[in-house]
Amino acid sequence: MHLSFSSVIEILGIMAFTVSGAFSAMQKRLDVFGVLILGFVTAIGGGTLRDVLIGNTPVSWLRDVNTPLIILGTTIVTIAFKSSVKNLKVTLLVFDALGLGLFTIIGIQKGMAANFNPGICIALGTITGCFGGVLRDMLLNHIPVLFHKELYAVPCIAGGICYILLRAVVEPQIAEGASVVVISAFRILAVRYNWRLPRV
Amino acid sequence: MHLSFSSVIEILGIMAFTVSGAFSAMQKRLDVFGVLILGFVTAIGGGTLRDVLIGNTPVSWLRDVNTPLIILGTTIVTIAFKSSVKNLKVTLLVFDALGLGLFTIIGIQKGMAANFNPGICIALGTITGCFGGVLRDMLLNHIPVLFHKELYAVPCIAGGICYILLRAVVEPQIAEGASVVVISAFRILAVRYNWRLPRV
Amino acid sequence: MHLSFSSVIEILGIMAFTVSGAFSAMQKRLDVFGVLILGFVTAIGGGTLRDVLIGNTPVSWLRDVNTPLIILGTTIVTIAFKSSVKNLKVTLLVFDALGLGLFTIIGIQKGMAANFNPGICIALGTITGCFGGVLRDMLLNHIPVLFHKELYAVPCIAGGICYILLRAVVEPQIAEGASVVVISAFRILAVRYNWRLPRV
Repeated sequence: MHLSFSSVIEILGIMAFTVSGAFSAMQKRLDVFGVLILGFVTAIGGGTLRDVLIGNTPVSWLRDVNTPLIILGTTIVTIAFKSSVKNLKVTLLVFDALGLGLFTIIGIQKGMAANFNPGICIALGTITGCFGGVLRDMLLNHIPVLFHKELYAVPCIAGGICYILLRAVVEPQIAEGASVVVISAFRILAVRYNWRLPRV
Repeated sequence: MHLSFSSVIEILGIMAFTVSGAFSAMQKRLDVFGVLILGFVTAIGGGTLRDVLIGNTPVSWLRDVNTPLIILGTTIVTIAFKSSVKNLKVTLLVFDALGLGLFTIIGIQKGMAANFNPGICIALGTITGCFGGVLRDMLLNHIPVLFHKELYAVPCIAGGICYILLRAVVEPQIAEGASVVVISAFRILAVRYNWRLPRV
Repeated sequence: MHLSFSSVIEILGIMAFTVSGAFSAMQKRLDVFGVLILGFVTAIGGGTLRDVLIGNTPVSWLRDVNTPLIILGTTIVTIAFKSSVKNLKVTLLVFDALGLGLFTIIGIQKGMAANFNPGICIALGTITGCFGGVLRDMLLNHIPVLFHKELYAVPCIAGGICYILLRAVVEPQIAEGASVVVISAFRILAVRYNWRLPRV
């Protein structure tokens, strides 16, 4: 099996999103099935919602058994080694930020392939990157952290605008790589310096 | 650009629904991104759910950039002038009620176009009119007000029955206009006199 | 009208799921419309989510007016005779368990018809059987009981594995019947002996 650079990032992103969902579920004292579902929903919720809105059905994880297996394996490891996994905080943040970047760009590309308006494409990218976390929070009976605590969407929108602009001037792969870096770096800085949007 | 009477009502309805979502979000102290998403979900959630259930994909707002722009503009104005907007209570109620009426009839028409049973068409109309508010309340971690506080669905069902009956005897546009008036007037009276359904 | 054995079980299952949703809604003191919607969502939510993920749209209840009518009738009877219905606890548990079994197998069959991987088919069966209850709990502002209290999914997965294995060796109808019995019996025993999954 040959893995491209972006499939490696995609796998790391799926793993980081799964860990985030699984930990949120463990904090609420769910059982093992609940932890698995929360890992799953966090990892594939955004892309699933995007595919349903576009009409790209069957949604991708139904046709690709690898993603569910990666999520299942990650959840088992997270449950079995929860304290060790917790100590990987910085590593997980980096993977999560890279995943956020890549998922956003994948969402934008799906929108462009369907000839949607660039603004709509950026919205689809943001949904892909962020709405797994929204579904996770809805299932756990929280107001989504994305709406009042965490700066998640702004990096996606900023990186999405970069991507659309860069696509007009450089090769697609360079535009993709640069935009993933913009989103990831922006997200990591937002966590590091606790940046927030103003409340109203 | 030529605007028909019903597109004017549709725009006013989208604006009123957006304001309702944005205000609910501000009450929960969300950040500006959260307020925007709540405005958006309240305005287009019902129609999006309907389109996904029918399989009318890509859902309409992906192909029509005007609706997202109206919602974005309305949210910005709502945030910037929140006290002035709040004072427009009666105006907003009227727009909201007109929007409810028109969205319900649009939903019924989509069901009729797909040759569904009239009862199913009325259900689709009610989903179109009411379920943006249900999604808003789910995201804000409330039990939807539609299920225990507000009389929203009964006007839609009553007006939907009117529409189905009138379609058999008068011209489509007259049936549409009359039913929108029935739904709006019923909804306004329900708010004015605090009508509720019995709890069980 | 000729009713096969599995359509009888399907109707009993829909009725039991509706009663479960309606009772949860009444405990939260919803109004009659809220009780109806909760009955409806609990009964058809799982199959609807499955159909949306696969792209089997319009979802089945839009094209089949009988299911909504059964749900409407069941809700009315549940509201009118709530104390009598409550006393049918054991009967309802049996119907609910039979419904869970049948809905799971129907979901698996839809996955097999679309040529998905067997593991994905079992996931679709579990979604069909269990996610109406998840949507019910989300609407009522609970963490879904399926994720921390009730053993619902494990019987579906166990019965789903049975079904996939039996399909390879016996006739489809025998595989179906046996697997429905496995799921139902497992679920009834789980309730009777209060079996739970470990929390983490």
